[in-house]
Amino acid sequence: MDVLVSEVGPRDGLQSIRRIMPLEAKKAWIAAEAAAGVREIEVGSFVPASVLPQLADTAEVVAFAKTIPGLEVAVLVPNARGAEAAIRAGADKLTLPLSVSETHSLANLRRTHVQVLDEAKRIADMIRDLPEGERPHFEGSLSTVFGCTLEGAIPDAQVARLAESLMAAGCDEVGLSDTTGYADPSAVKRLIALVRGVVGEKGLTGIHLHNTRGLGLANVLAALESGLTTVDSSLGGIGGCPFAPGASGNIVTEDLVFMLQAMGLKTGIDLEALLKVRSILEEALPGEPLYGFTPDAGLPLNFVPEEVR
Amino acid sequence: MDVLVSEVGPRDGLQSIRRIMPLEAKKAWIAAEAAAGVREIEVGSFVPASVLPQLADTAEVVAFAKTIPGLEVAVLVPNARGAEAAIRAGADKLTLPLSVSETHSLANLRRTHVQVLDEAKRIADMIRDLPEGERPHFEGSLSTVFGCTLEGAIPDAQVARLAESLMAAGCDEVGLSDTTGYADPSAVKRLIALVRGVVGEKGLTGIHLHNTRGLGLANVLAALESGLTTVDSSLGGIGGCPFAPGASGNIVTEDLVFMLQAMGLKTGIDLEALLKVRSILEEALPGEPLYGFTPDAGLPLNFVPEEVR
Repeated sequence: MDVLVSEVGPRDGLQSIRRIMPLEAKKAWIAAEAAAGVREIEVGSFVPASVLPQLADTAEVVAFAKTIPGLEVAVLVPNARGAEAAIRAGADKLTLPLSVSETHSLANLRRTHVQVLDEAKRIADMIRDLPEGERPHFEGSLSTVFGCTLEGAIPDAQVARLAESLMAAGCDEVGLSDTTGYADPSAVKRLIALVRGVVGEKGLTGIHLHNTRGLGLANVLAALESGLTTVDSSLGGIGGCPFAPGASGNIVTEDLVFMLQAMGLKTGIDLEALLKVRSILEEALPGEPLYGFTPDAGLPLNFVPEEVR
Repeated sequence: MDVLVSEVGPRDGLQSIRRIMPLEAKKAWIAAEAAAGVREIEVGSFVPASVLPQLADTAEVVAFAKTIPGLEVAVLVPNARGAEAAIRAGADKLTLPLSVSETHSLANLRRTHVQVLDEAKRIADMIRDLPEGERPHFEGSLSTVFGCTLEGAIPDAQVARLAESLMAAGCDEVGLSDTTGYADPSAVKRLIALVRGVVGEKGLTGIHLHNTRGLGLANVLAALESGLTTVDSSLGGIGGCPFAPGASGNIVTEDLVFMLQAMGLKTGIDLEALLKVRSILEEALPGEPLYGFTPDAGLPLNFVPEEVR
């Protein structure tokens, strides 16, 4: 089984750190992770610079990332205007978040569900008009899907309806996002079954989990057992959601890749090389806390890392 | 499904901390966890005080713990002499570790496999001669079973042979112990199947996992899915194995109980009360690092903890 590890640190990580990482450091980070074999990186977000100055250089980051052969360059877009900029920059994949909690949607994107779905439709229309070969992949991400810090649990029927609506609006697929760190392995399995029941297997392949309560990798295991093949994570575990108080801590890419390889799953990633990328973050973000156990403990004696061509 | 959370902090945690926790603090900790609903606590180890001065008061701790109604008072014993002291103190459960890595066995217990198995037989004989009702449960714990920091991977045949030998020596059951933090979910499932194939389902119900590389709870999930029902953990994640360099970090009881309850499994533990026990450690071990995500993040909004009678 192949697992696609999708690095989201340059977007989800950096947006929750006050300090602005210089463009050159972002480039070095992305280049080093791609060289280590990471095949998909969410490099930024097309939101107004006034909202997230940390990501104001996303167009330049995309342009650089696009020069790396074989790298899927993903970006987050909050709306059709952001998608337009993303398409102009040449991104390979656009992710539009839709908070299944409408309270969180209003707090995070300042839009109702109907408004976000309308943006989704406009984005899908925009992509459809592009010449073949230039069309980015378009994912609608169901965020706060495991519960919201403002609303608590979200009814299954609402999640199912919104998944269906995103596909109807023209998304290529939907994703699940544990924005708040509320997921547990049973909920992961239950929601994957629920959403796949609506959008089909190909309509849901990826998940974005946090490690807020330490369950991140257990939730990944549940997702893999349910047949998902794309897992988001962040180098050094940096990041979280600045609009969901107390909900910090992405899954640590280093620990995730160690787990996958220890299980014999194929990631295409050179784990030793990946562990070395961490030093770029240490240098570019001095004093910023980095997470992860494998970087401290090292690899087990005689551990045979995945052979990467 | 019921899961027995077996707290090992007073033994595995304290033995790897240089500082000696005063007897009164140990009593307060054990009493508070039992009051929160924890039904089994490994309260100490009957090793010479010269080796582990932190646990020199184990007999007094056992005597105190035995006054708590319904609490299963477990201890570690390195040999028949330790078992004799444990029986005299009135412990309910004795765990004898057998490192499947003979190199680690020599380093840790200074005994070969044959010597440890001989101790197991002497302990079993000792227990058999006790009047019914006074016989403690006797577990042989297969340690370094997921690999050894000195030897690396251990052959399956060796693990199977030693599991069989422990049962033949008279153990009531065997346990699996990831002394070195090398386990991954696939290995957990594979080894449970391997050992249960030798000792039967009732011959293996519990597992001791570490969080050395961040995989602790994912490994717990794999163990539960394989049918195990007893999971060791340590409040605040304190502990590890002082004889396996770099192998620190027990599973955090607070995060484990949160995961189990979020999954709808029954633990009998009052999670809010459990989280408060942490302050006893903070006071008794000032400056000692405590781990765990749930204590920092708090419980999800509208989280319904298990109802405990």
